[in-house]
Amino acid sequence: MERAERHEPEDAGFVELGFATVDTDRARRTGAGEVVFGAGKTASEIAEICRTLLESGQPRVLVTRLDPEKAEAASALLEDGAGGAPMPFAYHERAGLAIVGEPPAEPNGNGVVCVVSAGTSDEGVAEEAALTAEFLGNEVARLYDVGVAGIHRLLAHEDRLASCQVAIVVAGMEGALASVVAGLIGAPVIAVPTSVGYGSAFEGITALLAMMSSCASGVSVVGIDNGFGAGYQASAINHLPGKARH
Amino acid sequence: MERAERHEPEDAGFVELGFATVDTDRARRTGAGEVVFGAGKTASEIAEICRTLLESGQPRVLVTRLDPEKAEAASALLEDGAGGAPMPFAYHERAGLAIVGEPPAEPNGNGVVCVVSAGTSDEGVAEEAALTAEFLGNEVARLYDVGVAGIHRLLAHEDRLASCQVAIVVAGMEGALASVVAGLIGAPVIAVPTSVGYGSAFEGITALLAMMSSCASGVSVVGIDNGFGAGYQASAINHLPGKARH
Amino acid sequence: MERAERHEPEDAGFVELGFATVDTDRARRTGAGEVVFGAGKTASEIAEICRTLLESGQPRVLVTRLDPEKAEAASALLEDGAGGAPMPFAYHERAGLAIVGEPPAEPNGNGVVCVVSAGTSDEGVAEEAALTAEFLGNEVARLYDVGVAGIHRLLAHEDRLASCQVAIVVAGMEGALASVVAGLIGAPVIAVPTSVGYGSAFEGITALLAMMSSCASGVSVVGIDNGFGAGYQASAINHLPGKARH
Amino acid sequence: MERAERHEPEDAGFVELGFATVDTDRARRTGAGEVVFGAGKTASEIAEICRTLLESGQPRVLVTRLDPEKAEAASALLEDGAGGAPMPFAYHERAGLAIVGEPPAEPNGNGVVCVVSAGTSDEGVAEEAALTAEFLGNEVARLYDVGVAGIHRLLAHEDRLASCQVAIVVAGMEGALASVVAGLIGAPVIAVPTSVGYGSAFEGITALLAMMSSCASGVSVVGIDNGFGAGYQASAINHLPGKARH
Amino acid sequence: MERAERHEPEDAGFVELGFATVDTDRARRTGAGEVVFGAGKTASEIAEICRTLLESGQPRVLVTRLDPEKAEAASALLEDGAGGAPMPFAYHERAGLAIVGEPPAEPNGNGVVCVVSAGTSDEGVAEEAALTAEFLGNEVARLYDVGVAGIHRLLAHEDRLASCQVAIVVAGMEGALASVVAGLIGAPVIAVPTSVGYGSAFEGITALLAMMSSCASGVSVVGIDNGFGAGYQASAINHLPGKARH
Amino acid sequence: MERAERHEPEDAGFVELGFATVDTDRARRTGAGEVVFGAGKTASEIAEICRTLLESGQPRVLVTRLDPEKAEAASALLEDGAGGAPMPFAYHERAGLAIVGEPPAEPNGNGVVCVVSAGTSDEGVAEEAALTAEFLGNEVARLYDVGVAGIHRLLAHEDRLASCQVAIVVAGMEGALASVVAGLIGAPVIAVPTSVGYGSAFEGITALLAMMSSCASGVSVVGIDNGFGAGYQASAINHLPGKARH
Amino acid sequence: MERAERHEPEDAGFVELGFATVDTDRARRTGAGEVVFGAGKTASEIAEICRTLLESGQPRVLVTRLDPEKAEAASALLEDGAGGAPMPFAYHERAGLAIVGEPPAEPNGNGVVCVVSAGTSDEGVAEEAALTAEFLGNEVARLYDVGVAGIHRLLAHEDRLASCQVAIVVAGMEGALASVVAGLIGAPVIAVPTSVGYGSAFEGITALLAMMSSCASGVSVVGIDNGFGAGYQASAINHLPGKARH
Amino acid sequence: MERAERHEPEDAGFVELGFATVDTDRARRTGAGEVVFGAGKTASEIAEICRTLLESGQPRVLVTRLDPEKAEAASALLEDGAGGAPMPFAYHERAGLAIVGEPPAEPNGNGVVCVVSAGTSDEGVAEEAALTAEFLGNEVARLYDVGVAGIHRLLAHEDRLASCQVAIVVAGMEGALASVVAGLIGAPVIAVPTSVGYGSAFEGITALLAMMSSCASGVSVVGIDNGFGAGYQASAINHLPGKARH
Repeated sequence: MERAERHEPEDAGFVELGFATVDTDRARRTGAGEVVFGAGKTASEIAEICRTLLESGQPRVLVTRLDPEKAEAASALLEDGAGGAPMPFAYHERAGLAIVGEPPAEPNGNGVVCVVSAGTSDEGVAEEAALTAEFLGNEVARLYDVGVAGIHRLLAHEDRLASCQVAIVVAGMEGALASVVAGLIGAPVIAVPTSVGYGSAFEGITALLAMMSSCASGVSVVGIDNGFGAGYQASAINHLPGKARH
Repeated sequence: MERAERHEPEDAGFVELGFATVDTDRARRTGAGEVVFGAGKTASEIAEICRTLLESGQPRVLVTRLDPEKAEAASALLEDGAGGAPMPFAYHERAGLAIVGEPPAEPNGNGVVCVVSAGTSDEGVAEEAALTAEFLGNEVARLYDVGVAGIHRLLAHEDRLASCQVAIVVAGMEGALASVVAGLIGAPVIAVPTSVGYGSAFEGITALLAMMSSCASGVSVVGIDNGFGAGYQASAINHLPGKARH
Repeated sequence: MERAERHEPEDAGFVELGFATVDTDRARRTGAGEVVFGAGKTASEIAEICRTLLESGQPRVLVTRLDPEKAEAASALLEDGAGGAPMPFAYHERAGLAIVGEPPAEPNGNGVVCVVSAGTSDEGVAEEAALTAEFLGNEVARLYDVGVAGIHRLLAHEDRLASCQVAIVVAGMEGALASVVAGLIGAPVIAVPTSVGYGSAFEGITALLAMMSSCASGVSVVGIDNGFGAGYQASAINHLPGKARH
Repeated sequence: MERAERHEPEDAGFVELGFATVDTDRARRTGAGEVVFGAGKTASEIAEICRTLLESGQPRVLVTRLDPEKAEAASALLEDGAGGAPMPFAYHERAGLAIVGEPPAEPNGNGVVCVVSAGTSDEGVAEEAALTAEFLGNEVARLYDVGVAGIHRLLAHEDRLASCQVAIVVAGMEGALASVVAGLIGAPVIAVPTSVGYGSAFEGITALLAMMSSCASGVSVVGIDNGFGAGYQASAINHLPGKARH
Repeated sequence: MERAERHEPEDAGFVELGFATVDTDRARRTGAGEVVFGAGKTASEIAEICRTLLESGQPRVLVTRLDPEKAEAASALLEDGAGGAPMPFAYHERAGLAIVGEPPAEPNGNGVVCVVSAGTSDEGVAEEAALTAEFLGNEVARLYDVGVAGIHRLLAHEDRLASCQVAIVVAGMEGALASVVAGLIGAPVIAVPTSVGYGSAFEGITALLAMMSSCASGVSVVGIDNGFGAGYQASAINHLPGKARH
Repeated sequence: MERAERHEPEDAGFVELGFATVDTDRARRTGAGEVVFGAGKTASEIAEICRTLLESGQPRVLVTRLDPEKAEAASALLEDGAGGAPMPFAYHERAGLAIVGEPPAEPNGNGVVCVVSAGTSDEGVAEEAALTAEFLGNEVARLYDVGVAGIHRLLAHEDRLASCQVAIVVAGMEGALASVVAGLIGAPVIAVPTSVGYGSAFEGITALLAMMSSCASGVSVVGIDNGFGAGYQASAINHLPGKARH
Repeated sequence: MERAERHEPEDAGFVELGFATVDTDRARRTGAGEVVFGAGKTASEIAEICRTLLESGQPRVLVTRLDPEKAEAASALLEDGAGGAPMPFAYHERAGLAIVGEPPAEPNGNGVVCVVSAGTSDEGVAEEAALTAEFLGNEVARLYDVGVAGIHRLLAHEDRLASCQVAIVVAGMEGALASVVAGLIGAPVIAVPTSVGYGSAFEGITALLAMMSSCASGVSVVGIDNGFGAGYQASAINHLPGKARH
Repeated sequence: MERAERHEPEDAGFVELGFATVDTDRARRTGAGEVVFGAGKTASEIAEICRTLLESGQPRVLVTRLDPEKAEAASALLEDGAGGAPMPFAYHERAGLAIVGEPPAEPNGNGVVCVVSAGTSDEGVAEEAALTAEFLGNEVARLYDVGVAGIHRLLAHEDRLASCQVAIVVAGMEGALASVVAGLIGAPVIAVPTSVGYGSAFEGITALLAMMSSCASGVSVVGIDNGFGAGYQASAINHLPGKARH
């Protein structure tokens, strides 16, 4: 079994950096490499973890929740070579994430991941989802600003929606878009509540609860503003082996 | 002072029954007679308040939140004449309300009140709204069980919706129907969250918040399961004088 | 199909700007043009959307939730002509909104919309409601700072209140003003909870719940601080056809 | 000092009954005897605690939150003498409380405690407050069912209100009555939120928050449905010594 | 286009029963037939909707949230033929659901759906998920009562888990099992919070929030106790076409 | 009618300033002049309202929730005479309030108001209460930093506590001090929850709920951080007429 | 692999019963045998799990959350021998728990566990804690009904408290007792919030939050009404090896 | 009375500083000296309290919740001697705490306190716990960044965990680590929820509730981010006398 061959005694599956215990075994276990959650870490901690992961054989690392200042500092340490050998570093400001190492692989999923968003203010989270999915080897179709207040905008894209493998629906306020999309298609829908809105939108709680209580079957939900989680889950679904190969 | 002229000593605008201070002046002030909230009152208290209001000149009384047992007891005291002169008493079990006195008047509103509901479980609340509106002199169109999980059911009725004077949208779970309806029509939409659903629907809180945060303009909301409040508000809107009289 | 006949290929009812899908069909569908929610959009996005809407034939555009800095930048792009042909741009700081294009139309509603506010701190939201209603062609009467702690201030205006077509009540803290106003008049009352107050006012939640649970009939509620929503709903009510045309 | 004389070593200020540690020192410390919270205690526990208190010299005991079944059983043990020497036992079903021992004393407070309630459904809690105050030696004026939806009912009693020493305002739903009363009078107002209402009244939370956030000064609040607490506090206020200057 | 051929004018895609608007078009649109939510419907309404769906060509109908009494009555109307031609009716008490019509089809999904539950009290919800998945044509592996308080019970099944196509994790209390399972496997994990637990488990809210906030990637969540939703979503994932067809 | 006699046309009981409707009748009605809530008002609005009130005959005005910057600006307009005739202006930074006009009157209450606080961080709110009470003519005793974690600090002051007319207890975190004080004395206790604490203190909600649920009788509660409200209520209690019997 | 050496094939550390996976390895791992949570299990499931555990060598089993009816049925299956060999079965109704097998062992802890409760209504939970501790081999001192409303009752027992090894404080309502006890002693305090109280006690949430926010150091908290959890934790603390063995 | 003998007039057990009542008796009472909560106090207040405590004989003082600016100012007043005799001052920025006076004592506890944290972002709170425990005389083992998403990292340290006297588990997000650790060991587990995470982690509420509802026995919980409280409680446990059997 392949597993045993890679898991020698001298490979405990993690590396202790003092401030972090990096899980270098994750790709083997789950099929996707470790991802770095940037919030609450310093730029140099981020850089060191990225180096450790790239050197342990992971071809690229995704860093999420990264603000522009930290991105610049981390870039100096990684891409510019101030912290060692230069490593590619691509920052996407709207989505607040960076890809360190080789650019995303060629799409190798079963089909297309469709990212649907309700309003222009949801776009940051939608892009986090879309870029995560691309990072993990998926072809992504974007369908933005098609909220239910003007439902003809969504219905005009019904065919495109119907042909996707999995849909990610990103919406704040009352989050109704998830229910409407799930009522239209048979593919699984992953809903992402966003903190967009004000007053009774309660920083995304309203959308979260609404998506959780959807009258349409086939909706599951990730945390508020968790575009990464949705992209990750969509990729897992889109890379399932399928029946044909058996 | 004008107020003094209207409020002769012999007409204080209320009658004290000991256990209640009945507002007999309400019809003059707001155009609609006093309504009796049945919960938390005994059948004989309800009967006595109804008598007082009918005898003070109000042609009919609406009793809401009335369960079948209390309805039967109140009927015995009012309609069957066990408690005095017989008075008409019509009970509607699904809506949990009764109309005491003359049947509802001929519709005299400006147009049609459309009551739209998402699922069959919302029907009790929808009927409370519809019957309240009829009680107050409105023509009512019912459009039930057209939730967004099968949006073609709603779109098939788009014309009927578009021609109403005011729409009441009754929905539980995630309450998305209110946003979709408000995106389709220009008439005011009154949304009624219901406690239908389970788990994360949280007894209607989810629908309430969602309706409050609707991405579509033109939605206002009444309390959870408050079909009466929606019917009342719709009637007020449907009886506005209009421009003609100027 | 009937829908296709109304939506010729050359008029999909929306324009895709890349970052936004602008609903140019909204005025036909709901009687009021698209409104731009300024929060979360850049000044140039706002300007581009306004241009698209004005060029699609909408005579004026309302931009809400617009802070002074963004207003200045958008003004430079629209009114000052830095971004194309000059377009009128009027900013109202207290209400945080701008009107782009022709000034508001002559009032053409059925009657007067009365905006009642509880305290001086509620005035920003009250003005958002009032200016929205004026933008949409309504005559507005303002009745500010008449909260229930000194109820004679409100009662002194009872006649003015009683003659309005629809009342908007704006209040924070415990929101009691909505119940008192609704007990005094027969016209529909739209309540706007504000985030005014501190401690147990919980950023408007207390007022929202209180207004939702009003003991007075005839109150419906919009989201916290949603002056725009109330003005929009009031306008819809005030422009209903009335009975005459039958 | 009087205190030392009553507090002999052989009087620890409490009696251990095994299942309860009865505070026989409370009257000395706070001026009011121990009160028994009936919920969660068996009828025989209640009876035994009452006996202990009466035998320790307290002239009468108030038992709150007592349902009819337990009241009957406790009555059998106390009044009917089944459990020892007969002791007077008066049960008030609406308020759910009993007075064991001598009937309430002659009023000896400084003035009148006014109990104001919003609706008929609030009456049980209002009576708990009123009877508690009477038990503790206060003259009580009852002003029931005068909620703000028909504010003339309250204004008609303005003089009576203005002359009281302390007002207890009992209201559910949105609890607006407390603010209105406190705006009218200078005496302290103790507000009691009740669990009356449904849907968004949230079992009294809405009224509690609203009363807490009252825009009128001079309101303090006790727990939901805590008529006893309000009556107790009102009595403490009404029995204050007055200006020591005399 | 295939769609137009099946959607003749004489097929509106729904049937109006008066009390319900049955969506007979759902199977075509989403690949799965309409499901009946039993709560809040009478036995005869349930029976009539089932008949309508079976007669419209759907081979079997799933009825969820069905208590034993209603199941018996519905069985009398459907299986026993009291309400028309006899139709097979299989009730599963623990899961609270019934299958009307032909028994579930042969599994035709891509792989195995694994249902993992934390404790014996979660079994009802777990069975709702498992039976729903089987109803929709999936092979299901059950792994029950393997909560994290004795993590060796779960680790003993690591291989079985690793080979599934999609995992459903059902847990109440603190819901930690979802994070642990998602850390072990690469397949998508659908988490179902249950209302199992007491006190601070808050009827499933704690588990819901915990699952939403999972530190492990690859978890999406459905509503509290919504075993049906999880089974449905899992089936959609397990029936995706896979890459082969390209 | 008596009211009409007191409200001559030239004295409507309020003055309209455009941005505010100042209640100049409040002192007559409630015995205490209007208080200005500084938050959400500009310095010049505050100054204008103060002038109006002082000129209407109120000897001094209390301005609460006033930050140092606004205080300085208002002082320039009032005390320094930049906005008209100079008026005394005393600012208390810790309590965030100012007294405009004559200094507080000689104490003329019945006894002493005791302000008890749990920790040093509660002192701002405690001072707001104490200065408010002094403003309104009360003698105040301060007992600060005597929380229950070292209960001997409180017990050492038992006599001082026992002799007060009314106690204000200011505490954050778990707010236990209110229950302990109310268990020790018979005078009414007004509890003020503060937003002091972190994490599960939830900005004062925990203390609010705890004080509301006090196991000790004789506690009523004002809003979070509402030192003003407590001082006001305490003053009302301390100025009650005493036994009318005289 | 080391793990395999400890877990021989014939001892997987658990037994699969179909409806449950019984953790027979728990005593080895944690020092305390598996405990059965009775709620949500049938009497026969409980009996079968108890048998499995006793037969696997655990000398006695604790069953918590067991109501009297289920206890009687389980007793019939275990003690009365209806379900196999008779096994001792002792039910404690107030605490809602049963001990199956040998009676609790001789106390072998380091010192005394003191269980302190605030009111008589907290006694059920207090007994659950006390009996759990005794079941696990601890000497228990009970100090009941000593809430802070009469703090002398607690102070009278200060020495007894000061000498215990660990204190469990059980309180509902505002839960202040935990802070006061922790301020008096140096031993660790485990606080158990109970659902005792009504209205704003919110089924124990208030006490939970208050205990969590205690101003006194040395308090940790278990879930609402979780007497078992507190007794278990106290036992773990009381059986720690102490320094001696070094 | 015994108490009076221990508290001579010259030793009241506290020192009044005007702004604070310092509890100098705490070490005698609870075995640990007074700790200063830095938030909400000025640097000079902190310095003065530290001096008072050190001069009253406490060898060292812990100051928590101290930000770098205040630390520098307090250091100037204490260590640098600007405020009197120089006193050692050691600041730990990550943990936000300072130790004033002699460095922590030699460990004198019974065993090792193990501090386990889930992610790198939890490290500040974990260090607050670890340094507090060291301050109080405990040997501490740190096991950081071993969250359940890669459970092999934790299992690799199973032996180290199993040998500790008490474990502190620090985790944000869903807090699952506490349940897993408690399932592995028999020593008491003190869980610290952190505010790490975003969206549905709700600033630590999710972790708090999850830890409270742990399916594993032997977990008690302190407030959100309350590393100090956990370290304090762990120290109390680790310093218990051990078997009196000696």
